[in-house]
Amino acid sequence: MPSKSAIILLSGGMDSATTLAIARHSGYRCYAMTFQYGQRHLCEINAARRVAQALAVKEHKIISIDLSTFGGSALTDLTLDVPANSEIAAGRIPITYVPARNTIFLSYALAWAEVLDIWDIFIGVNALDYSGYPDCRPAFIAAFETMANLATAMAVLGQGRYTLQTPIIEMTKAKIIQKGVELGLDYAMTHSCYDPTESGKPCGRCDACRLRLKGFQEAGLTDPLLYA
Amino acid sequence: MPSKSAIILLSGGMDSATTLAIARHSGYRCYAMTFQYGQRHLCEINAARRVAQALAVKEHKIISIDLSTFGGSALTDLTLDVPANSEIAAGRIPITYVPARNTIFLSYALAWAEVLDIWDIFIGVNALDYSGYPDCRPAFIAAFETMANLATAMAVLGQGRYTLQTPIIEMTKAKIIQKGVELGLDYAMTHSCYDPTESGKPCGRCDACRLRLKGFQEAGLTDPLLYA
Repeated sequence: MPSKSAIILLSGGMDSATTLAIARHSGYRCYAMTFQYGQRHLCEINAARRVAQALAVKEHKIISIDLSTFGGSALTDLTLDVPANSEIAAGRIPITYVPARNTIFLSYALAWAEVLDIWDIFIGVNALDYSGYPDCRPAFIAAFETMANLATAMAVLGQGRYTLQTPIIEMTKAKIIQKGVELGLDYAMTHSCYDPTESGKPCGRCDACRLRLKGFQEAGLTDPLLYA
Repeated sequence: MPSKSAIILLSGGMDSATTLAIARHSGYRCYAMTFQYGQRHLCEINAARRVAQALAVKEHKIISIDLSTFGGSALTDLTLDVPANSEIAAGRIPITYVPARNTIFLSYALAWAEVLDIWDIFIGVNALDYSGYPDCRPAFIAAFETMANLATAMAVLGQGRYTLQTPIIEMTKAKIIQKGVELGLDYAMTHSCYDPTESGKPCGRCDACRLRLKGFQEAGLTDPLLYA
C-alpha cells in the first residue's frame, strides 16, 4: 500500500505520462493535474484522461485557464503558424514557447499540494533533448522549489518541505521511452503533436513529433501512433 | 510622458489601489491585472474597475481563475465561515488565507509582462500590518523574483531583468492611507471587506475591515465607506 502521495503534472504527452508511471512505480499515491490552457492541440487533454485512468490515479483534476489571453505563442495564438522545421538547431526560443507556462502550472500544483497536505510534485521537464524552453531547466526548477517553501503556510509553519521531482530531466527521449515501456506504459495512449489533424492524427513534422519519432528510432522501437 | 511601463496587481482593496497610485506617480505607464478567483467578495472586482478607470490605466485585464476548486479557504469556500474576531493576534495563519494565491497571481503577471516586454511588476503586499499570509513577506518576494528571471525566455536571453516592486511592504496601514490621500486617491472607490452585505456594504468586523478602520483612525482620517 502506498505510503505517500504526490501531485503529477500530466499533459498527455510522452514525458509526463512516463513521469506518472515512474511516480507510481516509486510507490506514490498519485494525483494528476492537467491544464486546458487554450492550446490548439486539445486531443492532449483526452490523452491525459486515458493515461490517468490507465495508471489508476487517485484523482485527476483538469483546470481550465486561458493563456491565450496573453498571446505571443503559436501554441495558443491561432494567428501564428506552428513551424514545420525545427528551431531547436538555431539555438532560439521556439515560437511554440508559452510565456511562464510551467511557472503557472507549478503554482496551481503548489496550491493543490498545500490543500491536500502533499509535499512531492512531479513534473516531466526534460533539459537534455533541449527544447529551448527556459522553464524546463534545473536552475528554474530549483528556484521554484525555494520559492514554494517560502510561499505557503504549511511550509512556513514547518510542517514539511516541498520537493519538485524531475525524474526524466536528464534522460534522452530514447531513454524515456525505454523506461516507460519497461514500466508497462502504452505510448499509444499519449499525444505529442503540436499541430494534429482534425481527427487527432499527429502531423509528423513539428518539433514535438520529430523529437518523439527520433526517440523511438534511437530506442529501437516503433511508435504505436498512426501519423497523418 | 511616461518612459516605462509596469504591471500592477490590482485587487480593488486599499493596498493595491495605493500601489497603483504610487506606480503612476513614479511615471509608469500602468497595466492593471485583476483576478476573479471564486472569492465571495465579488464587489472587489467592481472596486478594481473603478480604481483602474480613475487612475487611467493603459489596459485592465480581468482574469477568471477558479481557486475554489482547491477549497481550504474561507475566502473561496462558502461552507467555511469568515471569523468575526481577528486571528492575527494568535500568530496563526488565518482561515482567509488562500493557498499559493500570490504565487499564482504573480505567475500570470509574469506571463503578461513577458508578452508586453515589461520588466516591472508592482504588488501591494504588506508585511508590517502582518496579516499572517506567508506570501506577503519580503523573503517570498525575493525568491519569486529570482525564479522569474530563470523562468522566462526574455530574461534568459538577457533582454532584461524582472523586478518586483513592493512600495508599501514596510508601511503601516495609516502610512498607506496618508500616502494615497497625498496622491489624490479617493478611498471611497476601494473595497476591503471579506464578508460584505448583499448590497456590498462592508461588515466592519472581519480582519480586513478592522485593519482598514484602525488605519484610518491612526492616520487621523475618516473612512469614506458606509459600514453595515
